[in-house]
Amino acid sequence: MGDAVRADVAVVGAGSIGVAWALVFARAGHAVSLYDPDRGRLEAAVGELASRLADLAAAGLLDEPPARVASRVSARPELAEAVATAGYVQECAPEERELKRQLFARLDALADGGAVLASSSSALPISQVADGLSGEARCLVAHPGNPPYLLPVVELVPAPFTAEETVARASALLAAAGMSPIRLHREVEGFVFNRLQGAVLREAYCLVRDGVVAPEDVDTVMRDGPGRRWSVLGPFETIELNTRGGIDAHAERLGPAYRRMGNERGQDDPWTPELVARVSAAVQRRFPRRRWQENVEWRDRALMALEACRRTSAALAAPATGEGDEGGSTGA
Amino acid sequence: MGDAVRADVAVVGAGSIGVAWALVFARAGHAVSLYDPDRGRLEAAVGELASRLADLAAAGLLDEPPARVASRVSARPELAEAVATAGYVQECAPEERELKRQLFARLDALADGGAVLASSSSALPISQVADGLSGEARCLVAHPGNPPYLLPVVELVPAPFTAEETVARASALLAAAGMSPIRLHREVEGFVFNRLQGAVLREAYCLVRDGVVAPEDVDTVMRDGPGRRWSVLGPFETIELNTRGGIDAHAERLGPAYRRMGNERGQDDPWTPELVARVSAAVQRRFPRRRWQENVEWRDRALMALEACRRTSAALAAPATGEGDEGGSTGA
Repeated sequence: MGDAVRADVAVVGAGSIGVAWALVFARAGHAVSLYDPDRGRLEAAVGELASRLADLAAAGLLDEPPARVASRVSARPELAEAVATAGYVQECAPEERELKRQLFARLDALADGGAVLASSSSALPISQVADGLSGEARCLVAHPGNPPYLLPVVELVPAPFTAEETVARASALLAAAGMSPIRLHREVEGFVFNRLQGAVLREAYCLVRDGVVAPEDVDTVMRDGPGRRWSVLGPFETIELNTRGGIDAHAERLGPAYRRMGNERGQDDPWTPELVARVSAAVQRRFPRRRWQENVEWRDRALMALEACRRTSAALAAPATGEGDEGGSTGA
Repeated sequence: MGDAVRADVAVVGAGSIGVAWALVFARAGHAVSLYDPDRGRLEAAVGELASRLADLAAAGLLDEPPARVASRVSARPELAEAVATAGYVQECAPEERELKRQLFARLDALADGGAVLASSSSALPISQVADGLSGEARCLVAHPGNPPYLLPVVELVPAPFTAEETVARASALLAAAGMSPIRLHREVEGFVFNRLQGAVLREAYCLVRDGVVAPEDVDTVMRDGPGRRWSVLGPFETIELNTRGGIDAHAERLGPAYRRMGNERGQDDPWTPELVARVSAAVQRRFPRRRWQENVEWRDRALMALEACRRTSAALAAPATGEGDEGGSTGA
């Protein structure tokens, strides 16, 4: 895996996600070839990359001068040239199945046999894109957040035909580049990121539709409530530290209420004791129950550090709004 | 409403939420009476308050010396004395309906006729607690996050019998105290905070149950993905800035996919054009579409400021873990 971590990288497609990926890999020290079939786009992408790097440097988030990071990225108008030396290819083409199928066929033919071929797709599982290629075992989805240089999560989604080594190599390279790769064991629509986002959006739309709450108040609840905790703790971790007795006590006491709320939406997926025990055991590997009080205090210190940051950072104060707006105030 | 904003406050119940509420009101300059029927608890609460205030001061989050804030809080072992001068009462008793009913009857009898009576309940709507009291019109739920001095959201949930003026006075007092009050128009189980949290938990448990992803990877996705955005932008705002064309384009292009994901869970609540238009109009009051690009850049600067904070703050580095743990590393 050491080779993968040092590999040249090709980013195929120079839209906003392609530019962001090029930044991620160049920041981590990789030589990056950035390809786009549209030469105008490719030229614009170079300027966008410089602009993003300047923003990161201004925020104190770049360990090197922006120009040095940018110098690792080469704009390539020919696909063969772009992937010639690549040990890892990150495809960022539009979300069209036929286009991606043709592109993966070309990538499989052009790239070195040892290269990993990763798709940024949020919607097309790799089993519908790379099936039947002679190199299908080296293909997978590596779906990032937006923008990937600020949201480190990457969902690795192999097809049944993807080799375990492909997942391991992609994971090692991405982790070494400062990303947080996680792994799906089955291809499901929306993967995990958009499943969680979708669950929130579905509930939020229902609450507005039913006249329970105004849309802007849904946004305020999230920003000034669960969103703050979820930027520090995941949903299971949040519950573990929110209730004495952790995940187990929560499921016992509040599971029936959450089941009723699900029932109202047509869902009936009770949290069985076996399922809860499995989640509890996993969460306690990070937050052992015997250290519950210490961990709650850690959570509070982390939330305080974020709040202190909010108070001192002009960037967090208010969005750009239109004339006559109140500068982003959202009091009820 | 000026009177409400300067009112004396009584906090009834000195558990962890009561202590936290006392801190919130005292920090905002109110004279606070903290009541608990258990004198031992009341004495412990005074020490806990001092400890929380010291933590906030250490994090640079207190504008005055901790002792000055603490001096505004008086421990009161008698309810009548605690509420004698209060213009606002925040009830923080255990979540038992009969207990709260009896307590609200006493509060209604003891408190000044002009005082607002607010319950911290996350589960009991005020219509099941204060119905039939002569002062029912001045009663409502004001449900905080945990801890309320770090998560500013407060859900105001009136019963049908609650006077509009009660909601307005509670909202003004809480906003002046630095909280983010939002208003529900109907009593629904879980209110909004726990509806959003519940939607995520239900989906998360399903994904683990179905073998899609490990529990710890669900937590990583949230922390390093949507949670970071949701600490800056609500779910609708996130979508508005994530897609060119905003909420409207998102619903048109991805609505069917999110509907299918809902269908898999038994839910079928399509996002109708009318509903989407209503949400879009509301979100655009904060983020006008013509300023989309500027607002995306604002979002990215806000995320960068948070990331810079993460890099420099030891408090955000790693939770307390057990012996032999790796200090909170969560690589896939």
